[in-house]
Amino acid sequence: MDNEMLPPDSAELRALYEGFEANHLKPLWTQTGNLMPKQPAPRAIPFVWKWSDLYPLAVESGRLVPVGRGGERRAIGLANPGLEGRTYVSPTLWCAVQYLGPRETAPEHRHSQNAFRFVVEGEGVWTVVNGDPVRMSRGDFLLTPGWNFHGHHNQTDQPMAWLDGLDIPFAYQNDVGFFEFGADRVTDYATPRFSRAERLWGHPGLRPLSQLQNTVSSPIAAYRWEHTDRALNEQLLLEEEGHPATVGQGHAAIRYINPTTGGDVMSTIRAEFHRLKPGVQTPVRREVGSNVYQVFEGRGSVVMDGVTHKLEKGDIFVVPSWVPSSLQAETTFDLFAFSDAPIIERLNFNRTLIEDRVP
Amino acid sequence: MDNEMLPPDSAELRALYEGFEANHLKPLWTQTGNLMPKQPAPRAIPFVWKWSDLYPLAVESGRLVPVGRGGERRAIGLANPGLEGRTYVSPTLWCAVQYLGPRETAPEHRHSQNAFRFVVEGEGVWTVVNGDPVRMSRGDFLLTPGWNFHGHHNQTDQPMAWLDGLDIPFAYQNDVGFFEFGADRVTDYATPRFSRAERLWGHPGLRPLSQLQNTVSSPIAAYRWEHTDRALNEQLLLEEEGHPATVGQGHAAIRYINPTTGGDVMSTIRAEFHRLKPGVQTPVRREVGSNVYQVFEGRGSVVMDGVTHKLEKGDIFVVPSWVPSSLQAETTFDLFAFSDAPIIERLNFNRTLIEDRVP
Amino acid sequence: MDNEMLPPDSAELRALYEGFEANHLKPLWTQTGNLMPKQPAPRAIPFVWKWSDLYPLAVESGRLVPVGRGGERRAIGLANPGLEGRTYVSPTLWCAVQYLGPRETAPEHRHSQNAFRFVVEGEGVWTVVNGDPVRMSRGDFLLTPGWNFHGHHNQTDQPMAWLDGLDIPFAYQNDVGFFEFGADRVTDYATPRFSRAERLWGHPGLRPLSQLQNTVSSPIAAYRWEHTDRALNEQLLLEEEGHPATVGQGHAAIRYINPTTGGDVMSTIRAEFHRLKPGVQTPVRREVGSNVYQVFEGRGSVVMDGVTHKLEKGDIFVVPSWVPSSLQAETTFDLFAFSDAPIIERLNFNRTLIEDRVP
Amino acid sequence: MDNEMLPPDSAELRALYEGFEANHLKPLWTQTGNLMPKQPAPRAIPFVWKWSDLYPLAVESGRLVPVGRGGERRAIGLANPGLEGRTYVSPTLWCAVQYLGPRETAPEHRHSQNAFRFVVEGEGVWTVVNGDPVRMSRGDFLLTPGWNFHGHHNQTDQPMAWLDGLDIPFAYQNDVGFFEFGADRVTDYATPRFSRAERLWGHPGLRPLSQLQNTVSSPIAAYRWEHTDRALNEQLLLEEEGHPATVGQGHAAIRYINPTTGGDVMSTIRAEFHRLKPGVQTPVRREVGSNVYQVFEGRGSVVMDGVTHKLEKGDIFVVPSWVPSSLQAETTFDLFAFSDAPIIERLNFNRTLIEDRVP
Repeated sequence: MDNEMLPPDSAELRALYEGFEANHLKPLWTQTGNLMPKQPAPRAIPFVWKWSDLYPLAVESGRLVPVGRGGERRAIGLANPGLEGRTYVSPTLWCAVQYLGPRETAPEHRHSQNAFRFVVEGEGVWTVVNGDPVRMSRGDFLLTPGWNFHGHHNQTDQPMAWLDGLDIPFAYQNDVGFFEFGADRVTDYATPRFSRAERLWGHPGLRPLSQLQNTVSSPIAAYRWEHTDRALNEQLLLEEEGHPATVGQGHAAIRYINPTTGGDVMSTIRAEFHRLKPGVQTPVRREVGSNVYQVFEGRGSVVMDGVTHKLEKGDIFVVPSWVPSSLQAETTFDLFAFSDAPIIERLNFNRTLIEDRVP
Repeated sequence: MDNEMLPPDSAELRALYEGFEANHLKPLWTQTGNLMPKQPAPRAIPFVWKWSDLYPLAVESGRLVPVGRGGERRAIGLANPGLEGRTYVSPTLWCAVQYLGPRETAPEHRHSQNAFRFVVEGEGVWTVVNGDPVRMSRGDFLLTPGWNFHGHHNQTDQPMAWLDGLDIPFAYQNDVGFFEFGADRVTDYATPRFSRAERLWGHPGLRPLSQLQNTVSSPIAAYRWEHTDRALNEQLLLEEEGHPATVGQGHAAIRYINPTTGGDVMSTIRAEFHRLKPGVQTPVRREVGSNVYQVFEGRGSVVMDGVTHKLEKGDIFVVPSWVPSSLQAETTFDLFAFSDAPIIERLNFNRTLIEDRVP
Repeated sequence: MDNEMLPPDSAELRALYEGFEANHLKPLWTQTGNLMPKQPAPRAIPFVWKWSDLYPLAVESGRLVPVGRGGERRAIGLANPGLEGRTYVSPTLWCAVQYLGPRETAPEHRHSQNAFRFVVEGEGVWTVVNGDPVRMSRGDFLLTPGWNFHGHHNQTDQPMAWLDGLDIPFAYQNDVGFFEFGADRVTDYATPRFSRAERLWGHPGLRPLSQLQNTVSSPIAAYRWEHTDRALNEQLLLEEEGHPATVGQGHAAIRYINPTTGGDVMSTIRAEFHRLKPGVQTPVRREVGSNVYQVFEGRGSVVMDGVTHKLEKGDIFVVPSWVPSSLQAETTFDLFAFSDAPIIERLNFNRTLIEDRVP
Repeated sequence: MDNEMLPPDSAELRALYEGFEANHLKPLWTQTGNLMPKQPAPRAIPFVWKWSDLYPLAVESGRLVPVGRGGERRAIGLANPGLEGRTYVSPTLWCAVQYLGPRETAPEHRHSQNAFRFVVEGEGVWTVVNGDPVRMSRGDFLLTPGWNFHGHHNQTDQPMAWLDGLDIPFAYQNDVGFFEFGADRVTDYATPRFSRAERLWGHPGLRPLSQLQNTVSSPIAAYRWEHTDRALNEQLLLEEEGHPATVGQGHAAIRYINPTTGGDVMSTIRAEFHRLKPGVQTPVRREVGSNVYQVFEGRGSVVMDGVTHKLEKGDIFVVPSWVPSSLQAETTFDLFAFSDAPIIERLNFNRTLIEDRVP
């Protein structure tokens, strides 16, 4: 639509615009369309990072860059090509591959930013969260909610890599972050099979009577793969037996939750796990907010904005806000997913559109 | 305190009181003290029902009384001696021992009243809740929230007895109950090890993506003993290792919760399980609301209003509102507990007083 | 339906029943129908108390009975004929007419029971709530939530009568009440036009920054008639102008709310005001829970359980749980209403049935 | 602190960094300090816009720039000098002065972005929100929550200017905004004294029975100055009488709220009004989140980061996240304030530090 407010150039108009400039003012009428598009027009683009590219670079980092204080983590961030060279996978989310070599320690610190880890492969690292050592193994989803001290150490002779997700861009953009250094070594090098958090909270439907105060973030430090895998399998079995259980035909999914509220694990980040049976294709979906997925197992593809991307184990992709997307499973297809949905929903900006068509 | 409002008897006064009577009116000034006591003055009394008395009567009922339509359940209700001959364990709660003989079926029905079962001994019965067969075994806590069809059947050649808890008195007193007959037989005689509800919901911290709507009552049909037992053990182990986990020294406890909210399993009934180490004695406690306990295992005693009652496996006792009580463990002492606390708390009548003394 | 569980009489059976009796037990199978009816079967009956009967008795009480400590209030309670001679207008609610003679003082006390007053006629009394003097005038709705000290005094040479509503039966039945005497005189005999509570809270949509903590009960001590009247008028005007505003054609209504939450004024009592245009008849409605109305102005009738009762100013009637009822307005018909709906709804027992028929 | 992770330059390292670049990756260790500062380090700076500069430019815009479709509004946005030339008063908030000449109409549109208007001076404009004409007068606070159609028209021969506040930067940054054009003229040119929204909702503590569903944003379209002024006056009077009412000695304040919840008026924007008595100085305060103020009446100053800025009627200033600030009143000092606090609090990033010192 034409902008009826743009007057012809004139000396007076130029003087007016100079007055704006001198006084740190800007007219709305020269910028409406960009600032307030008809629908979300993300600068972030749909993008796939291949594990086959990522992992060797992580290994090489392990060889060349020591892990230590100041840099804090040997984490390689995914920088969405649309976001002006910033290490943002989306405007709200940070996603990185972290690599810890044999016997290395990443020092302790804490920050307002909420963090999680997801382990696509390997084991042998313990993350120590507020003094509680938490084993990291394949398929586990691990929490480090804001302002908890945490460090990591590798107990083995093998390196280990995993996915880190945080709300760093959101915190940076909105000036909400605090950061504090902790111990240079982790506070406890014990390597228990289960963290204290799990021993206290990891019992379905049971709440410790000493813990009746609800918490902003989930007190469960580790969501173990064995539970996730079993929950997904049961959904598919129930579906086969004729009972409602899945989100779509052949599509099992769980959301990780805070047991004190039944809601998302952290205030800014939602995390889920999806399993598609071979051949399943999900409806084309548009959602306000940014979604990131990592392939955990299997082969398939994602169609984003009409473009098909082949996917293999370890591949990570981002679906920016309102970009139409659909998943397709070639084999049984397991994907870990996270998003900024709690931000979007708590501020009531959520909208979803399921398109009635094949991609 | 004297009642300054009581005028001397007179013809005029008698005429006034007759006027009240004729018009279905009553003066407050003749009844304040009783109606509004300085602190809760329950008519219910502290009382212990011995399993050694209860169980043989249940067996005898099994011999003499058929289970069937109309009477619906072979349930023997605990009638608090203070409550005018009603089958109320407290003004709000119903507690009964239900007995089902070999191969018997208790027919299906549904009602607004919330119900649970707790199994102090035995196995072999399946309760079918809205068509979902739920195994009942020792130590399990099982839900039948309001308006779910349910029936039971015994698959074995052994009788089985268990504890039923409901909010029948509350529903009756406040005229909120609806009741409907269902099938004369249960709708599904399958005997799966795990109910569909458990297969969908029984994974710690994981919520099916197809079930994002919160529910008034917990969707978990069965809280299994193995989880309860492990949760309590872990609390005691964590305490021994020097970490906060128990509600008091040597006193582990869990509350059964609705995973969609983190709150109580049903709107009117709270359920918990407590484990005391040998020799532990809990502080004297007064609480608004009624609490009922059943000894699951071990030996100990309860002091109520200063009177000590010895307790053994299966014994059931009620602590009426504001009655001071304390538990004492002789052996490891396991108790199932339920109460009307959700009623009290949702209506903001809750008060607790922990007395700083030995009972 | 027949009770299939009633065995033929026998010596063994009698022995069993004696065993029950001796051990404070009762079988469910002899009482199911009464305890768990198919729909609420309230013992309370629909009933109308005529103001023309009530008020003269209140006046006579004023002449014969002094107001003072012990009896506390010259309040005459409405005793539902169905409720075994208790001063209960319903199983949950207490409703009384309180009468205070010229220059009298009702002494201060406090109790867990929630209370309100509604003024059908007159003025000149101040109720002093936690030291804050609150004027009482015709049409005002005034709160004394649980555990606030309160007393009343009449500043004039005229007597005054008003309606008291409390949750005394509920508190008594469930053993939740505490009571404490306060000053024998009220703590402040000032007679300001507006209470401090109103001055702080009575501004639409504005919350004092010093009062950001939500409160269990409304902090607004007095809901003035001028606001209620204007709100109802505006609804009817908006309806005439073609905009949605009323609950039904010609039926304006407001609910009194707690401004810190938008919910009911107190945890156990809902209060509303209804205005019907002449000729309006409301649909037949059944609701779980007890509703009490007082005619504030105008003439009309209520049909309860098919029986029509004529109503005039001051008349009070109760609609017990699930009793079908409908209001009919002869003139403009103003009714104050209160109920136990917060109890019913917070415990998820609420059901409503609007019947598609004329009464 | 030194960054121990920075290895010496080498060909291998350069190759690694080139590999990162080629694959849209970035290491965390080169950017931690900036991305995750020890405390919020806003790029936005504390800044004051003088009304004496702003207003003449608005007038000149009125002379030179027609209001119309495409540009939509003759709004002049405040561009924080620290925010890279964007029209953001803070990272989250947009603040503009809007100017509407005699008899002009700003066309209708709607958008996800939440908007409000505050009138520092003048009258004669009606904003039409979803078809409901809302008068705009001095001191009024007016809402246009997300996705409501709205346009404005000036009914008089005088121009009018007011303050617009929106969450445009937040919506833009996070890709959550939708926008739709509406009628080129407003849908209703009526000029009622009170909007339908006010007539329905503007009664303290009274909720229309037809409106029991809670709403995401406040249904009150206009918060009138007369109520705000009275509420503030009453607080100061109550303080003088010795009662708790103000937030600090001589400092009255109200928050505008959504009456359906008691919470903020919109999901992303908080609005308040503050009144300081002459001579009052508020404690130095740091808060996570951005606050914007406009002087409504009186003279005083604000100290931000230790720098004192003199303030007069109409002046607007921003306090970026965690910047210490204090207000000082020379005369009675009235300020309208708005912030992104609902964003910060709903995502649990809120922190406040009151410093125990004079600025």
